[in-house]
Amino acid sequence: MVARGTSRVTIATIADLAGVSVPTVSRVVNGRSDVAPQTRERVEELLVRHGYRRRPQSTRASSGLVDLVFNDLDSPWAVEIIRGVEDVAHAAGVGTVVSAIHRQTSSAAQWLEGMRRRGTEGAIFVTSRVEPPLQDELRRLDVPLVLVDADGVPPQHAPTIGATNWVGSLRATEYLIGLGHRRIGFVAGPPQLMCSRARLDGYRAALEAAGLPLDDALIRPGNFYHEAGFAAGTHLLGLSGPPTAIFASSDQMALGVYEAVRRRGLRVADDVSVVGFDDLPEVRWCSPPLTTVRQPLAEMGMLAARTVLRLANGEKIESPRVELATELVVRDSAAPPRT
Amino acid sequence: MVARGTSRVTIATIADLAGVSVPTVSRVVNGRSDVAPQTRERVEELLVRHGYRRRPQSTRASSGLVDLVFNDLDSPWAVEIIRGVEDVAHAAGVGTVVSAIHRQTSSAAQWLEGMRRRGTEGAIFVTSRVEPPLQDELRRLDVPLVLVDADGVPPQHAPTIGATNWVGSLRATEYLIGLGHRRIGFVAGPPQLMCSRARLDGYRAALEAAGLPLDDALIRPGNFYHEAGFAAGTHLLGLSGPPTAIFASSDQMALGVYEAVRRRGLRVADDVSVVGFDDLPEVRWCSPPLTTVRQPLAEMGMLAARTVLRLANGEKIESPRVELATELVVRDSAAPPRT
Repeated sequence: MVARGTSRVTIATIADLAGVSVPTVSRVVNGRSDVAPQTRERVEELLVRHGYRRRPQSTRASSGLVDLVFNDLDSPWAVEIIRGVEDVAHAAGVGTVVSAIHRQTSSAAQWLEGMRRRGTEGAIFVTSRVEPPLQDELRRLDVPLVLVDADGVPPQHAPTIGATNWVGSLRATEYLIGLGHRRIGFVAGPPQLMCSRARLDGYRAALEAAGLPLDDALIRPGNFYHEAGFAAGTHLLGLSGPPTAIFASSDQMALGVYEAVRRRGLRVADDVSVVGFDDLPEVRWCSPPLTTVRQPLAEMGMLAARTVLRLANGEKIESPRVELATELVVRDSAAPPRT
Repeated sequence: MVARGTSRVTIATIADLAGVSVPTVSRVVNGRSDVAPQTRERVEELLVRHGYRRRPQSTRASSGLVDLVFNDLDSPWAVEIIRGVEDVAHAAGVGTVVSAIHRQTSSAAQWLEGMRRRGTEGAIFVTSRVEPPLQDELRRLDVPLVLVDADGVPPQHAPTIGATNWVGSLRATEYLIGLGHRRIGFVAGPPQLMCSRARLDGYRAALEAAGLPLDDALIRPGNFYHEAGFAAGTHLLGLSGPPTAIFASSDQMALGVYEAVRRRGLRVADDVSVVGFDDLPEVRWCSPPLTTVRQPLAEMGMLAARTVLRLANGEKIESPRVELATELVVRDSAAPPRT
């Protein structure tokens, strides 16, 4: 560690310390592959130890690319985030490289290798967490990193863009209470994700604030996918005291609940109210149109792109975490309970 | 035009003819921007006129990128195609640059400018057609082009990947006829797209083969989006002799028909059968699950990526047009008509 107040360490200093030439250090700094592995390792270790920071990146040749990395491209919300990132990047004359790494270290390593060869202005990861070795490597390569935690767990050592999960969940539950519901089922997301916990807590807070009892039997586990919503809905509707409304903490799970309602010969809204979370474009067109908490996914992508391009430009970011507002979108899937 | 059998024209020849240096011609060939516009134009004109072909691309430095260009990133099927392309490209160590050009010449020009700077192995366009000036420019830059015509109009001067629209539509209509339906509504796609016409013709062919009358009143216009399906469904169900089944030639339109059915107080399958076209991932989870014609979108993306990488490698492609098989996926949205 370099003590605060010391002058900036230069490439020449690192070259001296490593016993290599200045161009060699420069090659390592620029992520080029024509350096012997042992040399690279020694130089990188010194760069980190001495807190070397390359000059503001606006002075180096632009790769003209930003990287957008997903675990899986298996959800309609992926395209919303791509749309937001591409929109900002395109306007900046920068191409958006979309990758899926399938939670595999080998796949992440392959992405890293390709990125190293072609260069990047910065990387946006849409994932709950970026493994520390990968974060370290990005830091060594001086690649700015931004996380979009649509399913995120802060803190990370990188700026994160999220949505106000707790407030959104609170509002949705308050809305159902306002319609007269007293027994409201909840379908949770994966418990290891911070956003899942925030949504569950928002639901609980609304019930508590209204003086309603918390019944753990009405809270069912889930994973954000359709199947889990279907299973939870089937279970809840089969209880001896079934809920009159079900709040599913993702739209896909809400659609699974729709199917559970239909299979029981019941109707959404008329017999059971259903509310979701996300506002995917297609839920305007499920039958009946879904009342849901809107996450501004495209806007989150846009902000992530703007943030990563600012970091690439050497600018400072005001806040390491930004949460964009969620909003309740009322459509036709919730109604007062049958009396 | 260079006559057949003449020897390959070289960069030196072009430089002589243009009255510029060999490095200047080389810069134009490599798509670099540090050439005066008038010089570039003169050199490019000579390159085309003399049929200059750069050496097989496997010998040049790899950009490590393929381009995937959409008009709009506004449909869930976009993510399916991205998934297929990324899968193949990632395995080849190549990054996938995703762009949306919004049918705007200025936006296409900006994409071209960025692509020129950073390089590309080739471009996959997901669009009905690529405008001739853009095609010419890609040819001048020697960038291989492949079209995915999920909404395509052949012939194009580039390999195209499609799906068997006519056969898929025939099978879906035969299936409804087999259930006992005699009055089957059809919601068409945009008439200027070849795939729309193929789907309409497949519907007509099935009716004719079954000896059923063609009733033009049962064929409604559409554009593949939800709203059009809703409007068409509302119209058809309001006829004095309404159809007992509606075949919508896209899944999104089928979901619009679902909503029209619900608004009339009817139930899909029980009262009106509905069949779609696409098999988007979410239609497994609409209520009831949609019977539809599967377009293998991810596979179309995979084949497009393999094709463009083969072209980049200087390989020959066997066929300028490949259609992957569609298949009828039977779920719960169609049943025998009420008697």
